[in-house]
Order: sequence, then C-alpha cells, then structure tokens
Amino acid sequence: MVNTLDLNEIHQLFESTRVARLGCVANGDPYVVPINYEFRDGAIYGHSLPGLKISALREHPRACVQVDQIEGDLRWRSALAFGNFEEVSDDAQRQEALTRLMGRYPMMTPVEWSVVHDADTQDIIVFRINIDRMTGVAGS
Amino acid sequence: MVNTLDLNEIHQLFESTRVARLGCVANGDPYVVPINYEFRDGAIYGHSLPGLKISALREHPRACVQVDQIEGDLRWRSALAFGNFEEVSDDAQRQEALTRLMGRYPMMTPVEWSVVHDADTQDIIVFRINIDRMTGVAGS
Repeated sequence: MVNTLDLNEIHQLFESTRVARLGCVANGDPYVVPINYEFRDGAIYGHSLPGLKISALREHPRACVQVDQIEGDLRWRSALAFGNFEEVSDDAQRQEALTRLMGRYPMMTPVEWSVVHDADTQDIIVFRINIDRMTGVAGS
Repeated sequence: MVNTLDLNEIHQLFESTRVARLGCVANGDPYVVPINYEFRDGAIYGHSLPGLKISALREHPRACVQVDQIEGDLRWRSALAFGNFEEVSDDAQRQEALTRLMGRYPMMTPVEWSVVHDADTQDIIVFRINIDRMTGVAGS
C-alpha cells in the first residue's frame, strides 16, 4: 500500500530528518547532492562553499529537495519540497541562518560542514529554497 | 577532511547501498525520487510503473543517481553516477532484470515495490541508466 502524506506529516518529515538530497539542473542536466538543512518558515535553509551546486542554482534557481525515513522494506516515508533558490545576503539574516545550522549540526555532517572550519566564513554561501509545493508518500 | 573516492570505492558504495536517489529533469525542472536498483555491468537497473519519472526520462534521458552511507556526522561517503536512461524492452533481458531486482529486494521497498503486486507486471517499466561518469567523496 502506498498512501499520500498530508501537509502536517510532510512537515514532520522535513523537521525530523537530518540529511536531504537537493536536486538541481546543472548545465541542463540533473545533479543531486546530500545537504544538511533547516526547514523553517516555509523554506529550506542551507549553506555551501562555491561550487557546481551553487553555480547551477544561480543559473537555474528551481530546486527539488527530497527527504525520506526508511525503517524497513515495508515501512518508509518520502517527501519532496519544490521551490526557488535564493541567496541570503542580508548580514543579520545570514548570520542567524548559519548560527541555527551550526546549532542543528554541532558535529558537522556530510559534504559541507567538514570544510567549514578550514574556510573563511565569508566564503560560505547561505541560501534558502522558498517552497511553493510539497508532496509525500508512505508505504505501510 | 573531504577525500575523493576512487572507482573501486565508488563501485563498493553502489553495490552495498539499498536505496539510491534518482535525479532527472521533468519539464525543465529537477525531480528527485528514491529508487531500488541493481548496479551491474556499468549500469543502474531499476523498474517503475508509468509516471512522472518515466515520462521525464523519456523526454530528457540524462540521469544522476546518488547513494550515500552516513555512519555519523564525521564519517560519511557519497557517490554519483551520471548516465543516460534506456528502457529494457527485450523480453529476456527485461525478465532477467526484474528477477534480479526481486531477488535483491524480496521484501519490497520504497515507493516502487509496494505497488508491484497489485499491478500487471506488463505495466512495469524496466530501465537502465548506462553510466558514463562516476564521482565520490568521503568525510573522515
């Protein structure tokens, strides 16, 4: 059986999951990377050093963020958030988002955080995906 | 520290992971879904009922398949396989791929398998992503 998740269940999934996969379009083709994030105020907040993901999203701001919880072959949930990429350039907002992300991931995590302590924090790009559509399904 | 994985390590990651995320371009925008798969002979084999993923890949066959193993905030691996979508329409090859997938996922798994037993297997699309590039990174 596959069931549709309601918006509350989708929100819970985005709030309780630690790693999401961000899909974007890079030079016309799909590109998927794991990200740490915070889901807040209808947006997915993230950060990144400059690279393919950021250059792709600057050129084609549409993003698809996927999370799932797979407890077993028969019990799983998956949800998608669609929205547009926006860089957070306001100093106060940028610092708040970074502080919240660092609080959520104090030990650091995949792909991104490992490099943060080696980098000038001014190099870090803080962004949000402003969500306009969410979907979710579950198996039971 | 972030390290690049060599091709053997990338292959091992694709062989030992049970759920991948398939990124494609649907109507010009990114779309990401979890899939069960088999990595074999330089390709990612999968199956699906007709739907957005299949119609997207028929129109724009480029795919990005992502897998990861996250053992902790400081220990993780992530790899990408890029390639082109191809439907497996030859009856014998199609049956072999389905049999192998069912063997690998006897209990069924996310999004796809749950519906298989309700569907005429003739409706199931078997496909492969013919890989032409793989990349991988690890944190330690």
